[in-house]
Amino acid sequence: MLFDDAYFMREALKEAHYAFEEEEIPVGAVVVLRNRVIARAHNLTERLHDVTAHAEMQAITAAANHLGGKYLVDCTLYVTLEPCVMCAGALYWSQISRVVYGASDVKRGFSRLHDPLLHPKTEVVGGVMGEECAGLMLEFFNRLRQ
Amino acid sequence: MLFDDAYFMREALKEAHYAFEEEEIPVGAVVVLRNRVIARAHNLTERLHDVTAHAEMQAITAAANHLGGKYLVDCTLYVTLEPCVMCAGALYWSQISRVVYGASDVKRGFSRLHDPLLHPKTEVVGGVMGEECAGLMLEFFNRLRQ
Repeated sequence: MLFDDAYFMREALKEAHYAFEEEEIPVGAVVVLRNRVIARAHNLTERLHDVTAHAEMQAITAAANHLGGKYLVDCTLYVTLEPCVMCAGALYWSQISRVVYGASDVKRGFSRLHDPLLHPKTEVVGGVMGEECAGLMLEFFNRLRQ
Repeated sequence: MLFDDAYFMREALKEAHYAFEEEEIPVGAVVVLRNRVIARAHNLTERLHDVTAHAEMQAITAAANHLGGKYLVDCTLYVTLEPCVMCAGALYWSQISRVVYGASDVKRGFSRLHDPLLHPKTEVVGGVMGEECAGLMLEFFNRLRQ
């Protein structure tokens, strides 16, 4: 199948590579509606001096802008790293249908919490191309240490 | 004392009134550094069709922009309603020193969760001018029902 989760995660990974090249923690995201990418974004917290500029937050804003409405029902967010609490909170408000992430974030990922943060109607899939997504993060932090 | 928490909460309430006039859920926020307001914002989720446009999120971005750095150490956020999970997650990343809120949000406030969401170094004060802040919310929702 052409348009499977791995296909769109590769699109999110392209965004993560842009972040990497810009010396940002390499996280990328896309929002997909009926097999069409309607928003792309990558982490820009350093360039914008803004802790809210995570890939997911920008992708949510861009997708809502594209749709002309704030709810992302029927949309799927693909993101290379498990969303943090802030992004999970934003995804809750958006009522997005699906969240697919690559690498787990054992330190700041939303799923480490006891409380459920996403909307009960939101389906979550983790680990899609997880090794590739985690590998890019590791490469970034290894370079920082050199 | 002139510059106490009630003084700055009144500034946040002014912002909440702007939201009210624009038919947005009336929540306002200011960020204060050494008794100076460095950022002001009010909820714009309807006008911008954007679930991330809470008063707090915009105030965090504006304050970081003012400071030229993403961390809000030594700053205090005053917000008329208890922050939600998204905003608490953003406040965590900002490492803000203090969060002062007015009305409690028993449904979506961050403190209803079992997990601590804010940074351990962040001091939290709730209920400052709580009646005025809650009263404005009630007035808004009563009008909607009419």
